[in-house]
Amino acid sequence: MASYKSSLRITLPITCVIFETILIILFAMLVEYDQETDANLWHQKLRNHSETNYNNDFYYRYPSFQDVHVMIFIGFGFLMTFLQRYGFSSVAFNFLIAAFSLQWATLMQGFLHGMQHGKIHVGVESMINADFCTGSVLISFGAVLGKTSPVQLLVMAMFEVTLFAVNEFLLLSILGAKDAGGSMTIHTFGAYFGLVVARVLYRPQLEKSKHKNSSVYHSDLFAMIGTIFLWMFWPSFNSAVTAHGDDQHRTVMNTYYSLAACTLSTFAMSSLVNRGGKLDMVHIQNAAIAGGVAVGTAGEMMLTPFGSMVVGFLAGIISTLGYKFLSPVLEKKLRIQDTCGVHNLHGMPGILGAVVGAVTACLATSDVYGEGMEDVFPEIYNGKFLASTQATRQAIGLAVTLGMALFGGIIVGFIMKLPIYSSPPDTICFEDSIYWEV
Amino acid sequence: MASYKSSLRITLPITCVIFETILIILFAMLVEYDQETDANLWHQKLRNHSETNYNNDFYYRYPSFQDVHVMIFIGFGFLMTFLQRYGFSSVAFNFLIAAFSLQWATLMQGFLHGMQHGKIHVGVESMINADFCTGSVLISFGAVLGKTSPVQLLVMAMFEVTLFAVNEFLLLSILGAKDAGGSMTIHTFGAYFGLVVARVLYRPQLEKSKHKNSSVYHSDLFAMIGTIFLWMFWPSFNSAVTAHGDDQHRTVMNTYYSLAACTLSTFAMSSLVNRGGKLDMVHIQNAAIAGGVAVGTAGEMMLTPFGSMVVGFLAGIISTLGYKFLSPVLEKKLRIQDTCGVHNLHGMPGILGAVVGAVTACLATSDVYGEGMEDVFPEIYNGKFLASTQATRQAIGLAVTLGMALFGGIIVGFIMKLPIYSSPPDTICFEDSIYWEV
Amino acid sequence: MASYKSSLRITLPITCVIFETILIILFAMLVEYDQETDANLWHQKLRNHSETNYNNDFYYRYPSFQDVHVMIFIGFGFLMTFLQRYGFSSVAFNFLIAAFSLQWATLMQGFLHGMQHGKIHVGVESMINADFCTGSVLISFGAVLGKTSPVQLLVMAMFEVTLFAVNEFLLLSILGAKDAGGSMTIHTFGAYFGLVVARVLYRPQLEKSKHKNSSVYHSDLFAMIGTIFLWMFWPSFNSAVTAHGDDQHRTVMNTYYSLAACTLSTFAMSSLVNRGGKLDMVHIQNAAIAGGVAVGTAGEMMLTPFGSMVVGFLAGIISTLGYKFLSPVLEKKLRIQDTCGVHNLHGMPGILGAVVGAVTACLATSDVYGEGMEDVFPEIYNGKFLASTQATRQAIGLAVTLGMALFGGIIVGFIMKLPIYSSPPDTICFEDSIYWEV
Repeated sequence: MASYKSSLRITLPITCVIFETILIILFAMLVEYDQETDANLWHQKLRNHSETNYNNDFYYRYPSFQDVHVMIFIGFGFLMTFLQRYGFSSVAFNFLIAAFSLQWATLMQGFLHGMQHGKIHVGVESMINADFCTGSVLISFGAVLGKTSPVQLLVMAMFEVTLFAVNEFLLLSILGAKDAGGSMTIHTFGAYFGLVVARVLYRPQLEKSKHKNSSVYHSDLFAMIGTIFLWMFWPSFNSAVTAHGDDQHRTVMNTYYSLAACTLSTFAMSSLVNRGGKLDMVHIQNAAIAGGVAVGTAGEMMLTPFGSMVVGFLAGIISTLGYKFLSPVLEKKLRIQDTCGVHNLHGMPGILGAVVGAVTACLATSDVYGEGMEDVFPEIYNGKFLASTQATRQAIGLAVTLGMALFGGIIVGFIMKLPIYSSPPDTICFEDSIYWEV
Repeated sequence: MASYKSSLRITLPITCVIFETILIILFAMLVEYDQETDANLWHQKLRNHSETNYNNDFYYRYPSFQDVHVMIFIGFGFLMTFLQRYGFSSVAFNFLIAAFSLQWATLMQGFLHGMQHGKIHVGVESMINADFCTGSVLISFGAVLGKTSPVQLLVMAMFEVTLFAVNEFLLLSILGAKDAGGSMTIHTFGAYFGLVVARVLYRPQLEKSKHKNSSVYHSDLFAMIGTIFLWMFWPSFNSAVTAHGDDQHRTVMNTYYSLAACTLSTFAMSSLVNRGGKLDMVHIQNAAIAGGVAVGTAGEMMLTPFGSMVVGFLAGIISTLGYKFLSPVLEKKLRIQDTCGVHNLHGMPGILGAVVGAVTACLATSDVYGEGMEDVFPEIYNGKFLASTQATRQAIGLAVTLGMALFGGIIVGFIMKLPIYSSPPDTICFEDSIYWEV
Repeated sequence: MASYKSSLRITLPITCVIFETILIILFAMLVEYDQETDANLWHQKLRNHSETNYNNDFYYRYPSFQDVHVMIFIGFGFLMTFLQRYGFSSVAFNFLIAAFSLQWATLMQGFLHGMQHGKIHVGVESMINADFCTGSVLISFGAVLGKTSPVQLLVMAMFEVTLFAVNEFLLLSILGAKDAGGSMTIHTFGAYFGLVVARVLYRPQLEKSKHKNSSVYHSDLFAMIGTIFLWMFWPSFNSAVTAHGDDQHRTVMNTYYSLAACTLSTFAMSSLVNRGGKLDMVHIQNAAIAGGVAVGTAGEMMLTPFGSMVVGFLAGIISTLGYKFLSPVLEKKLRIQDTCGVHNLHGMPGILGAVVGAVTACLATSDVYGEGMEDVFPEIYNGKFLASTQATRQAIGLAVTLGMALFGGIIVGFIMKLPIYSSPPDTICFEDSIYWEV
């Protein structure tokens, strides 16, 4: 290990400083407070009696934002500490690329989702959307965990955030698809993008680091901190940007029931597929939260509690089976070394969520939604779409997402393969000591 | 250890799948969105100008719900990771039985607390109540931690949730007692139910596993994560279902002061009773949060900050003394092997809380409560009860709770003793490796 | 180690019991529910239609309060668990002195910030302010971590809370300075107070415990739990007591951007200054959150997202350089043994925050703030101050804070040096086993 001389001392500071400097310059030129955060504009509204302080969007969304924030930094960060000698890097690189991504996402989403008078206006909703985009990057991080340097990850984040924003724009603004909790935009996109990157970065000699690519007792307990926070706060995630009132309330409840059912099916399947009926921490840490992914699109719809439970139950089964049977195949046959198994937690459940969203949209009637149709399916409410049209748009949205993820992942994967990012050699992957004073 | 062949591979998947299937069927038949989560119904209210989005109950209660959720899954889950070799099982079985219990509780509480047109209507308040009922099951889990298989625990949860709902119905709906934070319904019930179950499941040969029934350095730190989250969020727990406005606000404050005082008395007593003045992590982890239990009933009342501090101070003393002097007696004389000492954290402080509630109710006057009497003591406000009647009802509520817990615990204990649940042998209790691929 | 006989068994219980008894007596005499927590008073307002339940301050501030609470108990508590053999003491003494300080702060702040009819009125805002004051004590705790007994810490807390309240009163009420997030009142005060105490308590023989004054792998991961929670919830901290509406919303956003930029500059500097470009966990754990400190004063002002990022970027650089180059000098030349490096995390970034606040105040114009000037700079709005006057007052506030901290710290340091508090000998500092049954 001593023979490996990293050039990180040069590349990491330069990358961080250049990236942050560009961000600061662009923010200076382009970003302004929106009407709810600007002292002058908000007080004009108050004076005209068109608003009251308790109707500031802050009070509707900030608690949800903070829950999402915990998922991004504690949830994803600690979920990845399961590796025995990669805990520092897991939680700290997660921290670094999330801190970068949320700034960059504010700009990219701002460009695409409508600037006003040449300016991007920011408030709690843009903060939530930036965290969502960051989530997608962290999912891809999970696929390449332990095998990539922080510089590589920052470069990946820069490109992935950009592509995420384009894909999100295509789905929500051009196609008119709905995806409040991001089954497609966040989970499917992040997972397949990351899997393709992992494929491009395939390391045939990775078994040299195999003894480090596993957990120890306490690292699995740290990972459970991540799991449980993700599980608990997923209702906030899926509801964070849905419409005020019944929409946020219903989305929370659907997600809560989906996750509860998913937990039971995960324990059942984990015990069933393992030798001697023993449970596997990998399944509990990951598959038990797939129920949140799978109601990401349909959570805001009138899915019913019962429907949510069926979806969550299926997600737990699919995900556990994926960890047990599909991941080894992906590695051996397709040469995809998916460290965290994001295909099982975000990929397949994301697709399931997209399909459930399309089916639920197809079943939307004005009897069920009443005036609430305007919030959930504005195009159906306005008479622009039939329910079946909406469903078709949802399905097209899934196809577009998969296309963007695969195509983008290949290009970005090859960019990441350039030998200029201080990538670790095969023999010392999954090892903190090359990045940290341990 | 190798000789123990568990049948969990059969019993655990079957139990999980059957339970979840029954839940899904019953939800499909019986559960509907309430007026605040249903798109059509809520928007009818909005159109009639009888409601505004910011008055949706979601915004009053969801932050509290999430805090309660953290207490259930992180708080209880990690508090029980103190055992050196049972961390996986503690946090994961807590996760499993909580995920089951909250679904089952939604149905049981829905049946008993009033169905409308044959349907159970769900929203954020039913979610909080389901989490509360789950808390009671997890308290009982603490008494039998390390000595019961997950199948046994699921069976216990099914029966306990049912009895909890009946007891809660008797107290709140029949007797007219008040117990917003559940000193009686949650803590007293859960503790004594669990203690009786532990008595029935008494293992005379348990000392064979004694070397595992203790903590190591890092397992105690993991447990402190649970302790601190329980301590911090207890104000949200006690206030989660109290009336809007001053009631939620006051309950939070009373609980906050009770807990602060409890922490100081716990440190004092722990140092006083130990050899050489050393502190004991068991006391800090558990007794320091007894102040939350002890104001579970009176927290919403005009207990005053000073009164709350007195109650918390006493709770810390009682609980620490219980751990030091009473638990060994319970084990030796009464043959109750109470792994987590739930008698000290939930049992005695729960009874203290019930008594404090009765006394505080007795002191209620219209001078002090004004129109606020309607929220706290509707029966006194309506002239149906005198303050002394309310106090009597509170005391009867405690007696009913103890009766239900003891009687129910005996029956459920014997059901759990049937040799069909893959219960672990005496020699390998408190050991993860029989359930987990370690 | 066996030869050290602690007298904690006497001093700790006596101190805890006397302190709590005094608190309870003073609360009984002086503390009352405010208009938003008192059943009678709030319902009078409701009846007069001058208030609605959703306008109770609870709903504006309780989510922020809980985030602050998590920072105090989990954030500070776990941040200090980085020491290999001092995890129990770090998290538990943090717990003890915080539980004491928040009660004492309620009284001290109540005395000074205006009693009504001889009574202190408490509600969610007083709870937040008490937690803020507690934060200052915990910062000082960081400077003396591992070298002080819990009795010494309680004595320090008693005096420091008192001085904090006086200093806060001078700044906010006499000088008319603004400091919503406490760059001056909390961070600068707590840091320099603690540093002076550490100087007075200087231990020339401390290198005897040097092998314990360091981290191990898992202790650094526990510390990251503290770091990440502090980082995530800092926006809530800085906005918790700002005015409703745009002010809370804007403060959150400024803090969020400052922290994101700070994270990138911290990683850059950490890699740059270390041998071989390796990152140092000490920097990531501490310097990456300095961005929250540095916008404590200006966060509520119209700092702009761009301005916030510049401030955060600088804070990360200053703080990391401080850990690397300044801390060793402080120890060798000035004999200040600053265990957690609070000078780098709270001291210098606090001064930076005070300066940024003064500059931003100087730039305040009615064009930018409009009617919102009344919330942020009431004295400017009322025509009492020019912007430059406000800036001067901010600068005087910093000077007063430094003076109070240095002067108070010397006196309290000498009080803490009295040989009556069971202080640990030099050879067994940073060691849990003298306080705990391990």
